Amino acid sequence: MKTDIEIAQEAVMEPIVKVAQKLGIKEDELELYGKYKAKISDEYMNSIKGNPDGKLVLVTAINPTPAGEGKTTTSVGLGEAFGKLGKKAVIALREPSLGPCFGIKGGAAGGGYAQVVPMEDLNLHFTGDFHAITSANNLCAALLDNHIQQGNELGIDTRQVVWKRCLDMNDRVLRNIVVGLGNKMDGTVREDHFVITVATEIMAVLCLAEDMDDLKERLSRMVVAYTFDGKPVTAGDIHAVGSMAALLKDALKPNLIQTLEHTPALVHGGPFANIAHGCNSVRATKTALKMADYVITEAGFGADLGAEKFFDIKCRMSGLKPDAVVLVATVRALKYNGGVPKAELGSENLEALEKGIVNLEKHIENLQKYDVPVVVTLNSFISDTAAEIAFVKKFCEDRGCEFAISQVWEKGGEGGIELAQKVLETLEKKESHFHVLYEDTLSLKEKIAAVSKEIYGADGVVYSPAAEKQLKKLTELGFGGLPVCMAKTQYSLSDNPDLLGRPEGFEINVREAYVSAGAGFVVVLTGAVMTMPGLPKTPAAFSIDVDEGGRITGLF
Amino acid sequence: MKTDIEIAQEAVMEPIVKVAQKLGIKEDELELYGKYKAKISDEYMNSIKGNPDGKLVLVTAINPTPAGEGKTTTSVGLGEAFGKLGKKAVIALREPSLGPCFGIKGGAAGGGYAQVVPMEDLNLHFTGDFHAITSANNLCAALLDNHIQQGNELGIDTRQVVWKRCLDMNDRVLRNIVVGLGNKMDGTVREDHFVITVATEIMAVLCLAEDMDDLKERLSRMVVAYTFDGKPVTAGDIHAVGSMAALLKDALKPNLIQTLEHTPALVHGGPFANIAHGCNSVRATKTALKMADYVITEAGFGADLGAEKFFDIKCRMSGLKPDAVVLVATVRALKYNGGVPKAELGSENLEALEKGIVNLEKHIENLQKYDVPVVVTLNSFISDTAAEIAFVKKFCEDRGCEFAISQVWEKGGEGGIELAQKVLETLEKKESHFHVLYEDTLSLKEKIAAVSKEIYGADGVVYSPAAEKQLKKLTELGFGGLPVCMAKTQYSLSDNPDLLGRPEGFEINVREAYVSAGAGFVVVLTGAVMTMPGLPKTPAAFSIDVDEGGRITGLF
Repeated sequence: MKTDIEIAQEAVMEPIVKVAQKLGIKEDELELYGKYKAKISDEYMNSIKGNPDGKLVLVTAINPTPAGEGKTTTSVGLGEAFGKLGKKAVIALREPSLGPCFGIKGGAAGGGYAQVVPMEDLNLHFTGDFHAITSANNLCAALLDNHIQQGNELGIDTRQVVWKRCLDMNDRVLRNIVVGLGNKMDGTVREDHFVITVATEIMAVLCLAEDMDDLKERLSRMVVAYTFDGKPVTAGDIHAVGSMAALLKDALKPNLIQTLEHTPALVHGGPFANIAHGCNSVRATKTALKMADYVITEAGFGADLGAEKFFDIKCRMSGLKPDAVVLVATVRALKYNGGVPKAELGSENLEALEKGIVNLEKHIENLQKYDVPVVVTLNSFISDTAAEIAFVKKFCEDRGCEFAISQVWEKGGEGGIELAQKVLETLEKKESHFHVLYEDTLSLKEKIAAVSKEIYGADGVVYSPAAEKQLKKLTELGFGGLPVCMAKTQYSLSDNPDLLGRPEGFEINVREAYVSAGAGFVVVLTGAVMTMPGLPKTPAAFSIDVDEGGRITGLF
Repeated sequence: MKTDIEIAQEAVMEPIVKVAQKLGIKEDELELYGKYKAKISDEYMNSIKGNPDGKLVLVTAINPTPAGEGKTTTSVGLGEAFGKLGKKAVIALREPSLGPCFGIKGGAAGGGYAQVVPMEDLNLHFTGDFHAITSANNLCAALLDNHIQQGNELGIDTRQVVWKRCLDMNDRVLRNIVVGLGNKMDGTVREDHFVITVATEIMAVLCLAEDMDDLKERLSRMVVAYTFDGKPVTAGDIHAVGSMAALLKDALKPNLIQTLEHTPALVHGGPFANIAHGCNSVRATKTALKMADYVITEAGFGADLGAEKFFDIKCRMSGLKPDAVVLVATVRALKYNGGVPKAELGSENLEALEKGIVNLEKHIENLQKYDVPVVVTLNSFISDTAAEIAFVKKFCEDRGCEFAISQVWEKGGEGGIELAQKVLETLEKKESHFHVLYEDTLSLKEKIAAVSKEIYGADGVVYSPAAEKQLKKLTELGFGGLPVCMAKTQYSLSDNPDLLGRPEGFEINVREAYVSAGAGFVVVLTGAVMTMPGLPKTPAAFSIDVDEGGRITGLF
C-alpha cells in the first residue's frame, strides 16, 4: 500500500495559476509561493466583496478513536466529489502545525487519495504563516520583558505575566523554564513557558480577524500580564501592535492550493481546538463563499468541541451561517465507543455497534439544536460489514438525517459522490435556521452550564475555588459578555476520556479560566491541557530525509 | 530628506521574472515568492554549471565608526553603475536579520538610492530562509534533549551541551535560562541559552555548503554536546540530519531580487561576522559567477575581520578566487580613527585625517598580502571637503591603489560610475594572484598568530588557561587542520575597541576557543561576544506599523 507522501509525490499538480483561473482569479491577483502555492491578494478579496455567498458546509465528527476519524480526508474528498458533479466548490481547511510532523502524529493534509498538495510544503514551512505568528508572539514577549528591564513603568508583576513565548516545535523541556539569568543587562529573572505556535492567542486572533484593522484591534486587546494592582496589561499598552501587525501582514492573506484532483483549497490558520476555537480563518471561509457555490470547511476534534466552537465562536463573531453539517463517523469508532478494545475493532460486532451508536445519536441531537440540517457519513474501512453499515444507515434515517458511505481515502472524489449527492439534496430540500446555542448576555457560568448540559449532557458544573475566583475577576474586568471556549478531552462527551458512548450522570469540572481578550473568548479548562507537546522515543524525525534532487521522504 | 523606506516604497520595481529574463533565466527556472522575489531552482543552477566564471569583486571596509561605512550601499551602487556602463553584473549580498529591525540597528538593504528591494520583505520574513534555520536549529535541540529524556544512551553530559536554541529576535532574557523544570515528563533540568538565528552554526553551514549532499555532511558533523567521557556528540549521532535537511531544502536555494535600478541581486545567507565568517552563501556567489560577467559581493565588519574570513575561510573552502577588492572608507571614519569625537566629524580636519589614515594604510597592506588588486573608494558625505578628498586620493595612489569617490547613496548607479570605471580598469590591467594567508597544515596556534601578527599588527598572542586547554583538546579531537574564525571587536585592528588608527605594541588576548565542525572552522574568541542582542528603551518596534492597504511604515 502506498503511503500518503508517495501518493502525494506521484500526483501531477496543476500550476496554481491554472487552478485559480478556473475560479476567475487572474494571475495578477495571486501572490505566488513557487508554482503550486499562492496567497490571495487583498485586491482580489476586495473585488469579490459584492458576490453572492455560496453554501457553507461544516464537516465534523463523533468522538474519535485515538487515530482520528478522517474529517480532513472527508472534507477534501467531498470537495473533489462536488467537482466531479460539475459543481463549483472550494475547500477551506486549517494549516497543519510543523512541530508534530517530527513527533508521532505526522502531518495533516488529508489522507490516501483525498489529500491537499503539495503535501511536504504544507506540512513544513508552507507560506510562512506560522513562522510569522511565532515571530509576532515572541516579539511581544521580548517587548514585554524589555518594558520590565527598562524601568517597568506600568508596574507589571513578574509573577503575573500570562504571555508565553512559542516555537512550532515539540519540545518538552521548554514547558517550564526560568529566563533572565545572568547579570543586570540580561533581564529580570522570572518563570516562563513556551507553547507550540498553534496554541498562541495570535493564532486565534489571526483566524478571527476580518481585516487588518480588526487584526490590530484584536492584537491591542490581548492581555499579556497583570500589574501589582491586578490590572490587566495589554499588548497595546506595551506598544507591540504595529510591529506585530507588520509581521502578520502576509500571514493574514488566505493560501490557495489544490487537492490531488485539482479542486481549489484555501488552507489558512490552525488554532488549537481546546484552548482556542480550532477553525480555519474567517477570512478564508468568507473569501471561499464569494469564490464558489459550495464551501466545505471543518473544525478540530469531535462535534462537542469543534462544531460547538465553530457555531458559538466563529459563526457568532463573523456572522457566518452554515447551511448543512456533515457528521463523520466510522464503524470502528462507534464500536470503540461501545467498549471494544482497539485491537478488536476489525471484527464485526453489531452488539458493540448498537451500544456505541449512542455517541452518534447525541451528536446528531446536538447539531439539531442549532437547527442546521445534518448528513451523517461513514468513512469506510475495508473491515466494515454490510450488516454494520445497514444498521448505521437506518439509525440515521430514523433520526431525520441523510446518510452516505464515503470512500474518498481509497478512491478520491469518485468515492465521495454518494455523499456529495446527499449533501446537495439536503441543501436543496432542507433550510438551515442556524442560531447560536446561548446569548452573549448570559453570565460566564450560565454559558458554561449551557454547553455542559445541552451539548455534553452533563448534570451540572463543579468549579474549583481558583476557577470561581477567576470567573468572578474576569466578569469584574468586563469580560463577562464574551463567549466561552471550552478545553475538554476530545475522547469523551464528558471531561473524563474514559467515559465513552453517551455518558450520563456526570458533572463537568472547571479547574481554571482565563481570557483571550484579542480572540474574544474566555477559555475554560476542564483538565490539564498540553500546550507544548513532547517527542516520543523514536520520533518521526528519525525517518525524514531529503535526497540530492530535493525530494523529501519519510514525512507522513 | 526621504527615509530609506520611503525611497524604497516609491520605487517602481520590475517583475522579478523580467529581471531574471535579462540574465537568461526562464520563468520556469524560478520559484516565485510574490511578484518581486524568487528562488533560483536547482535545475537552473545545474544547467549553468558549464558557463565560464565572471570576475569576482569583494567590497570591504576600514574599521568603521559605530554608524558603519556603507559596504552594502557601495556594493549595490557599484552593481548599478556596472549596469549603467552596459556590463552584465550581479550583486551577491547577505540577508538581513529580522530581530535587529525591532531594536536600534534597523534593516540592512543598502541605503538612500542604492538599495535592494522590496526592502520591507527583505528585512522581515523575506523567503523564510532564516525561519527555516531557526526551525532546524531548534529541532536539533529538541532531539538532543529528547535523547537525554529517553534514556541518554550516548551518555551526554548535560553540563556539556554546547548546542543552543535560537530565535531571530532581540531578546535578552533568553541569553541565560534554565529548561526542563516541572515533572518527570517535562525533561531534564539544565542551563541553556538562546542565540539570535544568525549566530547559529546552521547559518554558517548553509552559507558554506556546496549542495544538498555537502549540507547534510556538514550538518552531521556539527558538535552538539560532549559525553561524560569528554567525547563529542554530533548532530549525526542524534539522528537529526535528515529532518534538518528537509527543513532547509528551500533555504539552500539563492534568492533573486533587484536594486532600485533593477540590477539583479542574489541575497542569500547571513552569518555573524564574529563567531562565524560573515559572508553570503557560497552557492549564491558561485551561481552569480555563472550568471554574469561581474559579481560584487561583500563581507561583514572591517577588512581585518570580513575580508580575512572571506579569503581564509570562504575562498579557502570553496575554491573561489577574488579578482579585485574595493576598500570602502569615509572621511568621517578616517578622522574618527584619527581621534576626532563623533560630534566633530562634520568639520574639515586634515591633521586628524592624516593621523587616522594609517588605518586605511594598514588595510591596504593587509589586502595586498593576499595578492589581490585593491581599489579604494570614499563613500562621500556632504561634509567632505576637497582638500580632504585630495589627500586621501594621493595617499592611495602612492600605495599602488586605484581611487574613486562614490556617491551612490545620493545618486544611485550614476554616483558609482567613477568607481565602476576604476574597478573595470583594475580588472583589465592588474591580475589577481590570490592565495590564502596561512596553510591548513599549521597548528591552530600558528594560524591564530598569523592572523594576529600579519593582519591585526599584534606583537603576539596571549592565551587564557581555558583557551590553552581548549585548543589542546580541539587538536587532540582532530580539529587542528581547520582554519580559525576570529571573533574580535570590529572597531579596532586590535582586540581593544578603544585603540583606533593603526595600533602597535599590543597583544591579542585569546579567551576561549570552540569548534564549529559543520561549518569547518575553530572559533577563537578574543573577548565577550554578544550572540543574543537586547532591545533599547525605545525600540524601533514602537514606530513600526502597517496600514489597511498593507503598507508598512517606520521600518528603517
